[in-house]
Amino acid sequence: MSQQLRDSIYEQLSSLVLIDPHTHINALNPASETLADILGYHYYTELAHSAGTPKEQIEEPGLDPKEKVGRLVANLGPLENTIQYSWFIELAQAFFGFEDDKLTDSNWEALYNTAAEKMGQPDWPDHVLAQSKFEAVFLTNDFDDPLEGFDTNKYIPCLRTEDLVFHLAKPNVRQRLKQATSTSVGNAATLRTAIGGVFENFMAKNVKACAISIPPGFAPEPISDARADSALTEILIKGADAAENQQRAIANFVFWTLAEYCDEFKLPFDLMIGVLRGVYPTGVFQGQDLYDSRLSLIQYKKLFNAFPQVTFPVSVLASVTNQELVSYSWIFPNVVTSGHWWYSNTPTYIQHDLAGRLEAVPQTKQIGYYSDMYKLEFALPKFNMYKRILAKVLTERFCVDRGWGEERAVNLGAKLLRGNIETIFNCG
Amino acid sequence: MSQQLRDSIYEQLSSLVLIDPHTHINALNPASETLADILGYHYYTELAHSAGTPKEQIEEPGLDPKEKVGRLVANLGPLENTIQYSWFIELAQAFFGFEDDKLTDSNWEALYNTAAEKMGQPDWPDHVLAQSKFEAVFLTNDFDDPLEGFDTNKYIPCLRTEDLVFHLAKPNVRQRLKQATSTSVGNAATLRTAIGGVFENFMAKNVKACAISIPPGFAPEPISDARADSALTEILIKGADAAENQQRAIANFVFWTLAEYCDEFKLPFDLMIGVLRGVYPTGVFQGQDLYDSRLSLIQYKKLFNAFPQVTFPVSVLASVTNQELVSYSWIFPNVVTSGHWWYSNTPTYIQHDLAGRLEAVPQTKQIGYYSDMYKLEFALPKFNMYKRILAKVLTERFCVDRGWGEERAVNLGAKLLRGNIETIFNCG
Amino acid sequence: MSQQLRDSIYEQLSSLVLIDPHTHINALNPASETLADILGYHYYTELAHSAGTPKEQIEEPGLDPKEKVGRLVANLGPLENTIQYSWFIELAQAFFGFEDDKLTDSNWEALYNTAAEKMGQPDWPDHVLAQSKFEAVFLTNDFDDPLEGFDTNKYIPCLRTEDLVFHLAKPNVRQRLKQATSTSVGNAATLRTAIGGVFENFMAKNVKACAISIPPGFAPEPISDARADSALTEILIKGADAAENQQRAIANFVFWTLAEYCDEFKLPFDLMIGVLRGVYPTGVFQGQDLYDSRLSLIQYKKLFNAFPQVTFPVSVLASVTNQELVSYSWIFPNVVTSGHWWYSNTPTYIQHDLAGRLEAVPQTKQIGYYSDMYKLEFALPKFNMYKRILAKVLTERFCVDRGWGEERAVNLGAKLLRGNIETIFNCG
Repeated sequence: MSQQLRDSIYEQLSSLVLIDPHTHINALNPASETLADILGYHYYTELAHSAGTPKEQIEEPGLDPKEKVGRLVANLGPLENTIQYSWFIELAQAFFGFEDDKLTDSNWEALYNTAAEKMGQPDWPDHVLAQSKFEAVFLTNDFDDPLEGFDTNKYIPCLRTEDLVFHLAKPNVRQRLKQATSTSVGNAATLRTAIGGVFENFMAKNVKACAISIPPGFAPEPISDARADSALTEILIKGADAAENQQRAIANFVFWTLAEYCDEFKLPFDLMIGVLRGVYPTGVFQGQDLYDSRLSLIQYKKLFNAFPQVTFPVSVLASVTNQELVSYSWIFPNVVTSGHWWYSNTPTYIQHDLAGRLEAVPQTKQIGYYSDMYKLEFALPKFNMYKRILAKVLTERFCVDRGWGEERAVNLGAKLLRGNIETIFNCG
Repeated sequence: MSQQLRDSIYEQLSSLVLIDPHTHINALNPASETLADILGYHYYTELAHSAGTPKEQIEEPGLDPKEKVGRLVANLGPLENTIQYSWFIELAQAFFGFEDDKLTDSNWEALYNTAAEKMGQPDWPDHVLAQSKFEAVFLTNDFDDPLEGFDTNKYIPCLRTEDLVFHLAKPNVRQRLKQATSTSVGNAATLRTAIGGVFENFMAKNVKACAISIPPGFAPEPISDARADSALTEILIKGADAAENQQRAIANFVFWTLAEYCDEFKLPFDLMIGVLRGVYPTGVFQGQDLYDSRLSLIQYKKLFNAFPQVTFPVSVLASVTNQELVSYSWIFPNVVTSGHWWYSNTPTYIQHDLAGRLEAVPQTKQIGYYSDMYKLEFALPKFNMYKRILAKVLTERFCVDRGWGEERAVNLGAKLLRGNIETIFNCG
Repeated sequence: MSQQLRDSIYEQLSSLVLIDPHTHINALNPASETLADILGYHYYTELAHSAGTPKEQIEEPGLDPKEKVGRLVANLGPLENTIQYSWFIELAQAFFGFEDDKLTDSNWEALYNTAAEKMGQPDWPDHVLAQSKFEAVFLTNDFDDPLEGFDTNKYIPCLRTEDLVFHLAKPNVRQRLKQATSTSVGNAATLRTAIGGVFENFMAKNVKACAISIPPGFAPEPISDARADSALTEILIKGADAAENQQRAIANFVFWTLAEYCDEFKLPFDLMIGVLRGVYPTGVFQGQDLYDSRLSLIQYKKLFNAFPQVTFPVSVLASVTNQELVSYSWIFPNVVTSGHWWYSNTPTYIQHDLAGRLEAVPQTKQIGYYSDMYKLEFALPKFNMYKRILAKVLTERFCVDRGWGEERAVNLGAKLLRGNIETIFNCG
């Protein structure tokens, strides 16, 4: 009985047309060209590598896409239990009529060929979006992205800011900033002007969010112009060799300035908190980052208090931080929960974290899910995974445990999936 | 089948008459006078504020109770998913015959009026206690509370000690201490005497516990009289401007002295560990506190070892600390698990934390639940929430997973709800 | 229906013959002689002590085994809810035909006598292994254990290394090392030689793993020979009074050297991370250790990167570290998840942690369970507990949530229970 209810809630949630509020889609090349784009997703390469496949086999320069897929398929056996493997099977079934539940030596070539043919059709990206029931997806754009050549209502710009905050000491970042804004950065004032120029560029192109991923040790605080001036002086001379405290001062100055512009331009500022880059430096491409779960949102106390008008959709990398996220969203009007990020994007952690949020964070302050995908084909299986867990939690914890009716449960789910995206990001 | 078992266990647990081992009830005015007292509970004001209601609307000076309720009702929509909202609906249904499952523009006034009439009856507090099946509730009393004018067997005093431990530098705290104990504090010896006087005052009034809430960074340790003398010297001169290390020394001295008196007077010492006050200083009344979950019970190693005869009922604010609580209670004879506090007082965290405790902490060392309420009407829905989760965990993890019979499961639940309160606090 | 599936999966998993990859069995005396060996397991003594039994009653010198059991039985009432109590009941039922579900004043003596009789039979250890369906168990051997007098294919040696890493400052440890390896340690070079001698001794006796338990603050790093030389100089003079930084330097040097030999001899290096010894120093034997859950696997970044050819089966003491373990095993080819250790070896934490692993760690990289037992009789109830939870998680999260067939689920379970032990430890 409760299984029927789960299925029914899932079906109703599946009828919604959605907007994906965070992806890494390249708007000029949004979908895959071959299965190599699908199986080249870091989840497959890093898991295959973790299970024993040498990096060289996967990342051989000039490797033919079909050969790459063949090599990966031969190494996917150890991954068949993972949820990531199930994403692949589900999308292969949905888009390419794949009928098996495992990818094997004997069925992969036919799938490869079918996929290549379908992907080669000119309207493939739009077909994927339509079949997956998405009307738009957010992008992740470098601060100097020209944002041209695509429909910004379908591919919605989002200003990604790690380069400005954490890498301003690199000469080429400052060079790109100068080129993008016609402003040469020499001190705090010109830096602020340049960042303002970036925002103006993006505002002209329908930007709907500013975003950044942050290491666990960062704790934003305001920096005076004078302090920023002296830090910049050293950084302009020494570049990445500048003292760590100077680089941190500039990181804080830029971060705070971004928040000020988010305030001015009424943009939400997505915080993705907790990643450590390059923990396994000899890992495969994009498979080198991990984390230290010992962080606290108390590190954001000053920020959340200083910008009451800026909405901060917060993602945390580790499930152990989720209860803090629930509590901070329950207290701070400007903090909202945002999706299930990366290492927490697996059913067990989604289920536990989602349940915690649904019970104690106002229903208007929860961004249910984003796919984080690089290619459009992944929205379908990732969102389906989430919808199944959402249907499970709504059934078990609201309908069974709390006596809710089905319609009420579906309405709550719909807010997380669609309604809140519109209101929080002012889109759709 | 297992749903029937859950229901049956819940019903049997619901037949018990209970003692609530921790509340903030004012014994001289224990129940609500209007719905404004109910909806004025910080859970509603802070969640409404978090969802967008301006603080000024909620906390306007001189606001008429009915007007306040009207304003809150207009802003409760975003909270309808929360467990806190369900507490309100359940108590409205139980006490006032409310028949809807949402509070709306069109039904709140009738409810307000019905409630006001019932609350106006002279025996309302006793009626609430009886209907909720409580024979007594613990209070939270300032150290200088005269504890007069009420039945201390029904409203059981509990000595709350933050003022003494963390705020002794404030002149008015020392003034109140002098008034309450006729002892003027000038050094460690007189401070010890004064605190002893507080205990004597409380012992004369049926006190059953000493209690304190503690910030995450605190780590109790003994302080010599000489060290306390020098710290006091500075504090008596500079007050709250005394150096942080002096204030910490006195905090430790007072804390340790409290434990010594708990030992002497055989009082349990409730430790509520982990809260940071004023993280969101412009939040609504009682809606400003949060936490940093990075703490460990290892900070209490010296304390637990130094006072083997003092029972420490320990509450932790974050679910990530619960496994440590389980383990420390499993090893230390004087540590017992105590309730589900504040930000962990929602079904998902209660369920996970309770299950961990039930499997590894001796059944005699678990205080199941306390309401933490400010008004008597909240014991019913809060304890009902807990009993439902308790019935669920007993059914799923003991009857289904471990083959227990129903009676055995109910007996275990009854210990957590009632039996252990009697033995641990020597009451009932 | 899903209960039937659980039962069926459990039955199939129960048909496997297993190898227990970590125990504290004494190969020369592997099984119990009386019930006092069973109830003397620290889980029972520490829990009985925690529930109020004086240590003196339990640890009275020269106490007769039957008297000891009688005293413990009288104090087990408070533990009847614990999973540890259920281990006892299950093994008593399985091995001794016990028919009750509680141990009482009136049934314990008969059980004691039956057990003593059975345990007195000459083939009792083999009978226990056969009935429990184990063909071999790993040991925990001191570095100077002669490893003689038993079948090392049934009782597989494992080199335990805390003494070398953390206690080399103790003269008797160095004395034992000299005796075992005929090498007198005077500097880094001779220390390396001596440790090599230990490995050679163990390699000659079918050793299959090196293992160590580690306090939460440890963060392995390489130490130069010169630095080790100067540290050793001080340690050889001052022993355990040597400065903490010198002792840490030697701990790191030895630890790193162990990893080098694991590399050379192709031995997995079991890391059991997080224990603090002697937190409750007046507790019962083996009932004094606890932990501080604030640790991160980032502390092992250097180690995991430096030894890509060494497999590190990692156990963590607290469930809050499990997600890091999942993520690090998902990224690092040489990190595998290992069992559910000590304070995390209870159903709620096993279930949550296991589910997280099954969804995101390659199925070839998961060591499902080890018993950690001191006497053979405990493998049966502990592994049964684990198999039940494994069957539950496979049923609920794979068959129900993800549509897997029963056979596929059983195959995954079998890898965790048996197949991976063979491949990871090169045994069986």
